[in-house]
Amino acid sequence: MKLKVKKIKISTGNVLVAVMNISDSQFYDLYNGDRIKIENSNGENITTFLDITNSDELVPKGTIGIFEDTTRHINIKQGESVTISAQKKPDSITFIKKKLAGKKLSYEEFYSIIKDISNNRLSDIEITYFVAACYTHELNDKETVDLTKAMINTGESLHFGHRLVLDKHCVGGVAGNRTTMMVVPIIAAAGYLMPKTSSRSITSAAGTADTVEVLCNVTFSIDQMKKVISKTNACLAWGGALKLAPSDDKIIKVESPISLDPTGQLLASILAKKKSVGANVLLIDIPVGRGAKIEDLSEAKALKSKFKNIAKKLGMKIKVVITDGSSPIGKGIGPALEARDVLWTLSNDPRGCKDLREKGMDLAIKLLKLAGESKAKKKVSELIESGKAYEKFIEIIRAQGGKEVHASDIKLGKNSLDIRASESGTITFIDNKFVNRVARIAGAPTDKEAGIYLHIRKGDIVSKGQKLFTIYSNSLEKMDYANEYVKKHFGIEIRSSDPLFNKV
Amino acid sequence: MKLKVKKIKISTGNVLVAVMNISDSQFYDLYNGDRIKIENSNGENITTFLDITNSDELVPKGTIGIFEDTTRHINIKQGESVTISAQKKPDSITFIKKKLAGKKLSYEEFYSIIKDISNNRLSDIEITYFVAACYTHELNDKETVDLTKAMINTGESLHFGHRLVLDKHCVGGVAGNRTTMMVVPIIAAAGYLMPKTSSRSITSAAGTADTVEVLCNVTFSIDQMKKVISKTNACLAWGGALKLAPSDDKIIKVESPISLDPTGQLLASILAKKKSVGANVLLIDIPVGRGAKIEDLSEAKALKSKFKNIAKKLGMKIKVVITDGSSPIGKGIGPALEARDVLWTLSNDPRGCKDLREKGMDLAIKLLKLAGESKAKKKVSELIESGKAYEKFIEIIRAQGGKEVHASDIKLGKNSLDIRASESGTITFIDNKFVNRVARIAGAPTDKEAGIYLHIRKGDIVSKGQKLFTIYSNSLEKMDYANEYVKKHFGIEIRSSDPLFNKV
Repeated sequence: MKLKVKKIKISTGNVLVAVMNISDSQFYDLYNGDRIKIENSNGENITTFLDITNSDELVPKGTIGIFEDTTRHINIKQGESVTISAQKKPDSITFIKKKLAGKKLSYEEFYSIIKDISNNRLSDIEITYFVAACYTHELNDKETVDLTKAMINTGESLHFGHRLVLDKHCVGGVAGNRTTMMVVPIIAAAGYLMPKTSSRSITSAAGTADTVEVLCNVTFSIDQMKKVISKTNACLAWGGALKLAPSDDKIIKVESPISLDPTGQLLASILAKKKSVGANVLLIDIPVGRGAKIEDLSEAKALKSKFKNIAKKLGMKIKVVITDGSSPIGKGIGPALEARDVLWTLSNDPRGCKDLREKGMDLAIKLLKLAGESKAKKKVSELIESGKAYEKFIEIIRAQGGKEVHASDIKLGKNSLDIRASESGTITFIDNKFVNRVARIAGAPTDKEAGIYLHIRKGDIVSKGQKLFTIYSNSLEKMDYANEYVKKHFGIEIRSSDPLFNKV
Repeated sequence: MKLKVKKIKISTGNVLVAVMNISDSQFYDLYNGDRIKIENSNGENITTFLDITNSDELVPKGTIGIFEDTTRHINIKQGESVTISAQKKPDSITFIKKKLAGKKLSYEEFYSIIKDISNNRLSDIEITYFVAACYTHELNDKETVDLTKAMINTGESLHFGHRLVLDKHCVGGVAGNRTTMMVVPIIAAAGYLMPKTSSRSITSAAGTADTVEVLCNVTFSIDQMKKVISKTNACLAWGGALKLAPSDDKIIKVESPISLDPTGQLLASILAKKKSVGANVLLIDIPVGRGAKIEDLSEAKALKSKFKNIAKKLGMKIKVVITDGSSPIGKGIGPALEARDVLWTLSNDPRGCKDLREKGMDLAIKLLKLAGESKAKKKVSELIESGKAYEKFIEIIRAQGGKEVHASDIKLGKNSLDIRASESGTITFIDNKFVNRVARIAGAPTDKEAGIYLHIRKGDIVSKGQKLFTIYSNSLEKMDYANEYVKKHFGIEIRSSDPLFNKV
């Protein structure tokens, strides 16, 4: 079938789609969602999904509507005559059906699926079937390892020869908790490699990448990353700028609508990214507790066990720690406020955060021990107390295009609002979700200067009227909205000191 | 949040979607795919999905883009200020996750999901999860019954009091096979009610609705259908025009990309439609054989068993027959050609089709027996031989706005092409899929006059050069394409009469 090209100035940003007039589609027995091959006069071809329109105006009979995304893959001129033919479904569909039917998949079958997802060759519905299959027919260890390898091999990788490469990952859910920004400089100052990639926030007030970006650039190519690492032993880069495990975002997109996270895929997703940067020594932090992502200890233990299993099969040394996830770590919540905390804490300033310091050092000790460091505890204390960890941190910031900045000089949202205790008593619970939400409403992380600053920790005794936290925002409207949210959904529990009343 | 309405002159035709500028969405912490409630100044509200755009041109900051579909549900004026708020996900999502996790669902939970699907309140991804769940965690009998009831209760229904209401269904896959158009007039002439709804073709050359439409109208409201039934005892209507089990099409849409058809859903879909027209006596035809939809006899027997189980629990008398699906039934393939066959066969014309006659009568006998008719075989022979079944057929056609037409007057595609045997031998196999495909390429069913006419049946002995079938088409281009297809994918097998050669 030959049709004339009609360019449509829109980017669908997803799978490639071409639009055909309904009369032409009926002529050639093609349906919505079919795949077609478009071949130009040079013999180059591309496969797209087919969309069928009734509109003679949008795509007249005899023409094929081509979106901008497609013209990036193949040279096509407006009005050019191209050959269209039906394409059968990719082999990945057969493999997805196989998994749905409860059969185990091989490495090659996972590779085929992951490659097609990465290259936008599967529709959202088709990817959804894959996710559902992995959820209902849990991946066994071999499948998890194969899926991980498939994800690694469809993306870019870093290699460091035989050197030890250290990495950490936190399963998330704790507000603040910028332990990575403590651990990385300690490890690098101790002489070990730690090429850390981190994400931007998805639902929290700040991801590590957002917070580091307050101080320097986080968007690098693989080569630029290598330069920073060769200078400093480490980096603090945004993972999304690199093409490690590119199928991951597309899979997350279909998991989100029903908040699904099949364990095999979670493990594969995390471990693929770690192995892609060459990591062979890995520390996993699983925060557990009320208000954390994982509230149930037995769930955390099961996950710990799976992590250990799979990481070993991938040739990685691993340690998994289960930590207290029932409270925020640090006082600032929001990129600028968290960056400030890190700078104060690393430089031993009295305004630093004791919990962030303790947890950061503890994780660094465990990671160094795992790497075979004999006097890990002594070394870490020394690097912190001497200021060497802080200096290494500044060295990394500079290598990433930033400069040394004093914590007190970091700009915060110009409006501030103090939220005070409505009664006296003991702080029994500070809800991570509440804290993150208020900071987001205030504008974080899009507005790096927005967020909240906690003046209290769990266990503190407060008086009525005492400042609990301060909201920072550059917008009065957002401040109002945040204040309203605080009134309606207050997420800090105070056990009244009046013995007659227990406020929950 | 208040935004100004900007109307967008496009119909998305699917779930309701509103478009927000990215700055506004970040302000209010809303994401692509979230649900929002839009409330106008009258206090009326509607829930839509949220799409986020970077384009200040398409939807500027401070406005909300409203598609045409939405304005059908709520009064909104261009430039009007509406209140936007985040809506939580419907309860159906919880139930879908429950089924995905392998738990059984209750009637109320199925009803919630089916109602939301029917009302376009679930996205394709969400519906896909439901389908995947029902496939991986097969519905037990109770669930299948509950799902069926949910589908019935979310659509329109017909009621006939305590009368016997007869119906039939063929699982499909056999080319031609217009047995419904034989059975319905026989049953109606015998004095029983048979309010038959049928579908248009999906992948075949013609559905019953397409073929009947050659002779009369098939699109009716429930009330119009009732009128035809009260006049004639029966009807031959297009199911898609009525709102029986409205979730069905939306479910089929997400099943198609990977050709999934979970058994529980298949049964619920068929039985819901039957019960919706008030059927209580049901004959199911399952064609089995090479080239049919179901090729494996044990699969057919398992399906037969499930049908019987579920239909009984729904209070229906049922008989399931497994028939030979390895060959087309009838000679014409395509709406006009098949309508011609039916008219010749019902009127006992020598040009009628012996196989269509035999199968049609046999199914009618079985259905009448099931309804308690004692001399079913005698009655059916008498109705056919006397011409009473034919007269009833014309009566139904007239009641549906058509008139009596002679089979030989039915217009066929103006171009014809004979396909001949390339050697002498015995016809051992005529592939249903091949036959349907050629007819479709020739233009059926969009062009009702297109299709093929078989001159031979399985078992016939042919000479080299003898006509096997004739292609009819109104388009020379389609005729060429069909001819090419025949050469490349010839689907009729002839066992050569030369003992030295066995052609497969």
